[in-house]
Amino acid sequence: MVVEVPRWTNAKMEIATEEPLNPIKQDTKKGKPRYVANIFPHKGYIWNYGALPQTWEDPNHTDKITGCCGDNDPVDVCEIGSKVRSSGEVVQVKVLGVLALLDEGETDWKIVAIGVDDPEAQKIHDIDDVRKHKPGYLEATIDWFRCYKVPDGKPENHFAFNGEFKDKDFAVEIIKSTHEYWKALLHKKTEGGTVKCTNVLVSGSPFCCSEEEARSIVQSAPVPENGDSVCPEVDSWYFFPRDH
Amino acid sequence: MVVEVPRWTNAKMEIATEEPLNPIKQDTKKGKPRYVANIFPHKGYIWNYGALPQTWEDPNHTDKITGCCGDNDPVDVCEIGSKVRSSGEVVQVKVLGVLALLDEGETDWKIVAIGVDDPEAQKIHDIDDVRKHKPGYLEATIDWFRCYKVPDGKPENHFAFNGEFKDKDFAVEIIKSTHEYWKALLHKKTEGGTVKCTNVLVSGSPFCCSEEEARSIVQSAPVPENGDSVCPEVDSWYFFPRDH
Repeated sequence: MVVEVPRWTNAKMEIATEEPLNPIKQDTKKGKPRYVANIFPHKGYIWNYGALPQTWEDPNHTDKITGCCGDNDPVDVCEIGSKVRSSGEVVQVKVLGVLALLDEGETDWKIVAIGVDDPEAQKIHDIDDVRKHKPGYLEATIDWFRCYKVPDGKPENHFAFNGEFKDKDFAVEIIKSTHEYWKALLHKKTEGGTVKCTNVLVSGSPFCCSEEEARSIVQSAPVPENGDSVCPEVDSWYFFPRDH
Repeated sequence: MVVEVPRWTNAKMEIATEEPLNPIKQDTKKGKPRYVANIFPHKGYIWNYGALPQTWEDPNHTDKITGCCGDNDPVDVCEIGSKVRSSGEVVQVKVLGVLALLDEGETDWKIVAIGVDDPEAQKIHDIDDVRKHKPGYLEATIDWFRCYKVPDGKPENHFAFNGEFKDKDFAVEIIKSTHEYWKALLHKKTEGGTVKCTNVLVSGSPFCCSEEEARSIVQSAPVPENGDSVCPEVDSWYFFPRDH
């Protein structure tokens, strides 16, 4: 996975698929950098959050299981290891399970994984091991995804499968199929809309460019603003009565 | 109150009562700076934590109510406002209630308070208003104090009054009586043991010194080490099954 948001932080860093070479940037809302609110008892994101490169949740494809189309992004990953990772870090992970978030009518798979270098990775092999070794974490994950957009004035999110996590095998199938959608995208077999597919590594892709061209794209990009810019309201805690 | 530990941080900063003029320093354990573990779902301290100056929990005095003696420290305060404060910050607070922690046989009062400058301070007047406006916070406070020393190999803490919070009036009485113990200490009416009472403001106290003397004490103190020193294990989350 590529880490976008380190655990316990609030800046909504993400792979910007509509920009050339898909840099990690802070999402903006009405021109201002976007932060995710702290939903009591949580502080920021409760895992190292990121994406699986070379996957794509095709918005043209309606999922047989959830009845919803893809959200036009790579598959999201919640890395539950004990280290706090950095934005941009590449972490080799062990896939453990998956949650099917339904976000405004789109299927948004959330893979649960653990860094292979984590001290506990040797004993956590599937979603039930998470329940066993990290009690409360899966329930907190549901609670977090259900509520995290409420402070922004959005409704609670819902889940397919009645909010049940699917196991490792199911998760691997999701990754395989979204990898196929990504391949179709990169080989122009499907309509990518505004997604920028320029790349240096996928030989045979019509979007493949040379390293020199890629370097020139990076060099001409605007200097990123500081994602840590001071924003005191990020320090607030949002108390949200639960009756679940 | 004087803030010792800002919300969501782990370094155990505290007023060092055994050092001249009682500076705020990081507590040490076996010569190493002490950090409090993250007890899932909590991240560090869950309030701005600090102390009420001019109070003292007299270890020579056995509390009529709890049957335990004082812990030799000023009264602790959990400030529940929305801002993250800084260590050393002086915050004028509104007292809301109190919890009686029994820590290894000592009474350790935890005052619950809110900064008078907090946006919600106008509507939070007593402990029941905390329950109403910040649902789950008092339960999390109990959970936190019960478990926070477990990762260090200590047993769970217990509480007087069956873990019930007492109201504002009760809290004010605790503050008044511990202020009287402090006065007796500063006027040498009681045995202070190793507590250093040197001060510049309590006229009539035998420990009162001049500003010049105080300045010289400060200037001859060792330069403090950086309390934020890197300590990666602080980033771990400790999962602790609860059957409460």
